[in-house]
Amino acid sequence: MTKAKRICTLLLRLLALAATIIAIIIMVTSRDSAKILNMKFNAKYSNTPAFKYFVIANAVVSIYSLMVLFLPSKNSLWHLVLVLDVVITMLLTSAISAALAIAYVGKKGNSHAGWLPICGQFPKFCNHVGGALIAGFVAALAYMVLLLYSLHTVVGPFFTVKA
Amino acid sequence: MTKAKRICTLLLRLLALAATIIAIIIMVTSRDSAKILNMKFNAKYSNTPAFKYFVIANAVVSIYSLMVLFLPSKNSLWHLVLVLDVVITMLLTSAISAALAIAYVGKKGNSHAGWLPICGQFPKFCNHVGGALIAGFVAALAYMVLLLYSLHTVVGPFFTVKA
Repeated sequence: MTKAKRICTLLLRLLALAATIIAIIIMVTSRDSAKILNMKFNAKYSNTPAFKYFVIANAVVSIYSLMVLFLPSKNSLWHLVLVLDVVITMLLTSAISAALAIAYVGKKGNSHAGWLPICGQFPKFCNHVGGALIAGFVAALAYMVLLLYSLHTVVGPFFTVKA
Repeated sequence: MTKAKRICTLLLRLLALAATIIAIIIMVTSRDSAKILNMKFNAKYSNTPAFKYFVIANAVVSIYSLMVLFLPSKNSLWHLVLVLDVVITMLLTSAISAALAIAYVGKKGNSHAGWLPICGQFPKFCNHVGGALIAGFVAALAYMVLLLYSLHTVVGPFFTVKA
């Protein structure tokens, strides 16, 4: 790997690390309360399994990203990193999809199922969830570019097998 | 690639193709109606964006799986297949996660958001969705095994780079 490529992958890993940490912080601090018919309702991320999964997945990804940053460049574990990058990108994609599906119902509701949108009552909560999703997207994009980069390195330019 | 490996990957691709087609059929035929307070309610997959996404993603995956089956073994496009396998597995994982998140709300509801479970009223619909999700899982598993196989072939046994 050339030096330019090495710096690029390092920057992408740093970006993914920062984005996942930001996603966790924004999601965990998403709280809002509303008074409806004199009853107080609270909205927080931990009430929704999909959002809890999102936080756990982002935590796993950020720990992995941090560990890879400290891996010495001559370590034999680097050969495993490509496989782990695939698994990590999948975990992130899955968590974002699940959280996005629920966030969509929260925003638009589903009249056929009788599920009302809740963003009108809890705008602060919805903004936080939206922000966390955007940060998660940035991390997933960084990992996808990294993955294509790694595959390009292993499989060769224009995807002709090197070996 | 040895002959045994080639047959294994062929079988995995056939399994993925069959599973995605079954997932589409089960999801598309998921219909149920219920009378609540003398009003007739219909449940069908197309009322939920996540389920529509699930069907579209499975259709894309099954078309891709079919095309790869007819790719001549000496074709230079095989080098692209590894990259496309990664993309396809991600698409499938994302679709299943989104559909599962919504199906979970349909089954258990979310009392904090005031979303009631609907499986009590539409048991046939819920069973179909559950079946489609299981078929989708089988397809995703087949693709994950295929992917690890391909990476193993490219990166080498014990993930030591061959080139």
